[in-house]
Amino acid sequence: MKNKKHQKIFREKIYIYGKNPLKEALKNKPETILKVFLSEENYQGEIGNLVKKLKIPFALMKSKKANALVSKDATHQGVIAVLNPNKLILSFNDFVNNLKVQQDLAIVILDELTDPQNVGAIIRSAAAFGISFVLLPAHRQAKITGAVVKASAGMVFTVPIVEITNVNYTIDFLKSKGFQIIALEGNGDKNLNHFSFEGPLVFIVGSEGFGIRKKTLEKANVKLYIPINSQCESLNASSAAAIVFYKWQSEISKKYGKH
Amino acid sequence: MKNKKHQKIFREKIYIYGKNPLKEALKNKPETILKVFLSEENYQGEIGNLVKKLKIPFALMKSKKANALVSKDATHQGVIAVLNPNKLILSFNDFVNNLKVQQDLAIVILDELTDPQNVGAIIRSAAAFGISFVLLPAHRQAKITGAVVKASAGMVFTVPIVEITNVNYTIDFLKSKGFQIIALEGNGDKNLNHFSFEGPLVFIVGSEGFGIRKKTLEKANVKLYIPINSQCESLNASSAAAIVFYKWQSEISKKYGKH
Repeated sequence: MKNKKHQKIFREKIYIYGKNPLKEALKNKPETILKVFLSEENYQGEIGNLVKKLKIPFALMKSKKANALVSKDATHQGVIAVLNPNKLILSFNDFVNNLKVQQDLAIVILDELTDPQNVGAIIRSAAAFGISFVLLPAHRQAKITGAVVKASAGMVFTVPIVEITNVNYTIDFLKSKGFQIIALEGNGDKNLNHFSFEGPLVFIVGSEGFGIRKKTLEKANVKLYIPINSQCESLNASSAAAIVFYKWQSEISKKYGKH
Repeated sequence: MKNKKHQKIFREKIYIYGKNPLKEALKNKPETILKVFLSEENYQGEIGNLVKKLKIPFALMKSKKANALVSKDATHQGVIAVLNPNKLILSFNDFVNNLKVQQDLAIVILDELTDPQNVGAIIRSAAAFGISFVLLPAHRQAKITGAVVKASAGMVFTVPIVEITNVNYTIDFLKSKGFQIIALEGNGDKNLNHFSFEGPLVFIVGSEGFGIRKKTLEKANVKLYIPINSQCESLNASSAAAIVFYKWQSEISKKYGKH
């Protein structure tokens, strides 16, 4: 009963733009799409055909109206779609029900990241390297917006995104299920070069400005750092995540022959 | 004589904003700074003291004027500086004169990247992993702007940035100096997991939308790919660069004990 409230979080409609993100949505999660606006050209093409085949409501787009819907520097390529975020985002309950703990399973928790570019890029790398779920706190964290969808190259439609209300509570829960908690932390004590990944894992990525919050960091089993030159203070959050996901996947694929 | 024209390229003044980028500029390349605008608070603090000590022209900042100088969503934190890009960017001649070819030397060439976030993030990762130079084509490539400086976390002031007029000509030159040319190419034929880095290297990173141009790709000695899940079409350019730079550095440090 405790988690019922997760389903009541108010989520605004998401406007996505650009051909590739919409193609990914049509291919992987057509149920998230409420309506599609297409330019005449796209209406006649591949996307138009898919939209008609899937019987998704659509309208021809007037470019002035289209430009008003998306932010100023976004190029929509004659394609805008309105999504129902409730169909895109998994509730914590659904996540728990879908969770099958395996040796080669990894999850990432984003701890209050505010930059949509970083959030999107991390979701894209998660998809690339076989991370099974991306968990986002519902508060003080960049939401899944059109900018995030675009930066993810549409990968929000392939990796399940889970909204959580409390990072520390979620970590405790995952620990109880046998997960090892690995904090990506520039000042950590385990060097990625010499670290060997083992068993079901949770990676925690902290916010650009402040890193992982203290209480969350304390819950980690491992504080993992990527060795860098002293002239450079830190890595970009999404670059650090990409490196760690890559290394994890290359080890896992050797151990379990996933690829 | 041929390269004289490189020095004549017209470059606009760069406005940078935010405390950290300015601190890096003051620490590493004060000669690039033409003038600094500071809020009262910053004038009284660490940055103000540095600016006075280095005798850099400064003025107190009126916030309305400051907001007009930087783009709308940029937070300047009461710090704006005007830079002379000619002092920040190395000419091709200077690059050639500074070049000492060594076994553990690596250079990156960005091939017409247009996203300032990616350009900045790649420069940041280059600094983190000891890449010696970042080469940017003068045309059809994102210039070093305030957004790039910010995304690089000020690392444009530590890694030498070189402006080149022609990518293919530069590759030929570097090949003649003994460099191996490694193209980061999703459809490449060498798997990063099984690749071993050797000798002086040039990494080429292609643009987000189109990858590396055909003629440039043909010049590469190695087309290197990062193995990813088939559900994901490609990695973000800066994520791919971060992974390859990391792997290169971890191998180099083992071989040559750099770290």
